Amino acid sequence: MGGMAAPAEHRAQYRAGLAAPTSGAAPGHTQANLVVLPQDWAWDMLLFAQRNPQPVPVLEVTDPGSPETTLAPGADLRTDLPRYRVWRDGELVDEPTEVLDVWRDDLVAFLIGCSFSFETALLAAGVPVRNLEQGRIVSMYRTDRPCRPAGRLSGPLVVSMRPVPAALVPVAVQVTARMPQVHGAPVHVGAPEALGIADLGAPDYGDAVEARPGDVPVFWACGVTPQAAVLASRPPLAITHAPGHMFVTDVPDAVYRLP
Amino acid sequence: MGGMAAPAEHRAQYRAGLAAPTSGAAPGHTQANLVVLPQDWAWDMLLFAQRNPQPVPVLEVTDPGSPETTLAPGADLRTDLPRYRVWRDGELVDEPTEVLDVWRDDLVAFLIGCSFSFETALLAAGVPVRNLEQGRIVSMYRTDRPCRPAGRLSGPLVVSMRPVPAALVPVAVQVTARMPQVHGAPVHVGAPEALGIADLGAPDYGDAVEARPGDVPVFWACGVTPQAAVLASRPPLAITHAPGHMFVTDVPDAVYRLP
Repeated sequence: MGGMAAPAEHRAQYRAGLAAPTSGAAPGHTQANLVVLPQDWAWDMLLFAQRNPQPVPVLEVTDPGSPETTLAPGADLRTDLPRYRVWRDGELVDEPTEVLDVWRDDLVAFLIGCSFSFETALLAAGVPVRNLEQGRIVSMYRTDRPCRPAGRLSGPLVVSMRPVPAALVPVAVQVTARMPQVHGAPVHVGAPEALGIADLGAPDYGDAVEARPGDVPVFWACGVTPQAAVLASRPPLAITHAPGHMFVTDVPDAVYRLP
Repeated sequence: MGGMAAPAEHRAQYRAGLAAPTSGAAPGHTQANLVVLPQDWAWDMLLFAQRNPQPVPVLEVTDPGSPETTLAPGADLRTDLPRYRVWRDGELVDEPTEVLDVWRDDLVAFLIGCSFSFETALLAAGVPVRNLEQGRIVSMYRTDRPCRPAGRLSGPLVVSMRPVPAALVPVAVQVTARMPQVHGAPVHVGAPEALGIADLGAPDYGDAVEARPGDVPVFWACGVTPQAAVLASRPPLAITHAPGHMFVTDVPDAVYRLP
C-alpha cells in the first residue's frame, strides 16, 4: 500500500498484522505517540504533561478501558498500531502487533503529539530535514535539564536534534512555534554543551545524523521524554508504540497549526 | 494602592485583608481563575481541561496540600486572593477573604487562564473593549453546545461576548488566536441564535453590555465553563475565587502570547 492511502486504510493493514514503520504513511495526517497506563498512574502522567507541555503535548486521553479515540473514529487502539511494546515493572517483556490479550478495563491511553507533523511543515517551508534526507531516525539526547516532576514521574528533558542551515534557523523556529501541540518551537539553538550534550555524534536514542557545512544544531523537546520518565518509575504495566511505529490519526496536521 | 504596583504588592494587600476586585491590578501581568478540589476529583478536572482546552486553559496544577505555585513564587494561594468562595456539595457556603481554616492536605489547586490577559492585548491592537468602556462585567451566556465530558464533569460551553466593530473582527481573531492559554481565538462570530442564545441583552452571568452601531457580537470560550461543570457535579468541597477577584500572578501576559 502506498503512502498516499487514507489513514483508515493504513490502520486496517496494521490491524491485519502489517508491522511496518509509519514514517511517510498518510502524509499530512497527524501521527501520535502512545502511552497506556493503569488508571492509578494516569493522574501522574497527565500532571507531568501539564507541567512539561513541550515534551508532552497530549492530544487525547481515553476513558478507562476504552480503546476508542476521537482522533480516529472507528479505530481500535489495541490493534491499529503496527507494533507495540509491553512493559512490566519498567522492563520490556514483549513487542507484539496487537495487545488485545494484555488490555484491561482500568487502562488509560495517552496519545501524544509527534515531530513527524512539524517535519512536514519544515519541508513545506523549504527547510531541509537531514534525518529524512539521510534515511535515518532523528538523533535524540538526554539533557542535563530536569523536567518538572509530577507525583512518581521525573526525569531529564530529552531533545531531538536537527541540523538546520544557519540562514534557515529563524524560519525553522517560526514554523514550529506555530505548532505547540507537536512540541512547538525549539528549546535550544546551537551550543549543545550548554544542554550537557558532549558529543552530537553519539545520540542516546536514534541514529547519528550528519550536519552539512553551515548547519547549526537545533534542539526540540522530544516525545521520548515522557516514555523515559514513565518507565523509570516502573509502573506494573505500560504499553507504548514501538519506536517509529506510531498511531496514524485522521486529523490533518493543519489542525495543529496556529495562524 | 495604584494599579501600577507590582503583583507581589497587590497580593500582600489582599493577604492583609483587602477585598477589592482585581480588574486593572498590575497591568500586563496574568491573572488566573482559581478552582480547588479534593485530590479524588482532580483527575476529572484535569481530564475535562485536556478535552476542553478553550474554556479550560490550565496554567498550573499544585501538588496536593501545597498552597504554593510557580506562577508567583512566595505567594500563598490560601490568603493571597482578595476574596474566595467556598462550596460544599455544590452549594455556596461562604465568601471569605482567606481559606486557611478550610484548607486540607488533599486539596489540589487549578489556576486557569483568564480573558483579562487578552483584553489588554485587544486594547493594544486598537480593538475597543465595550465592557471596559462601560465599566461593566463582560456578558456571559450558557450555550447549547456541550463540552466533552470527563468522568463526573459535564455541562454546556459558557461563552463571553464582546461587541467588536465589524472591520476589527479579523484583528480581534488574530490577536486572541495567538493567546491559546488565555482562551485563544473566538469560538463563534455573529449569529448568537446558532449558539442557542435567545437574547444578548439577558446574559446568564455578568452584565448586559451595549453594542455600538456596526458592532458584531464575538464569542470566546469562558472560564465560567469549568466552574459551572464542577459545581453541578457537587463535590464535597470546592474553593474558587469570587467573581472578579482573581489571583494576580508574576507572569507577564507576553509569556502566553505566541509569535
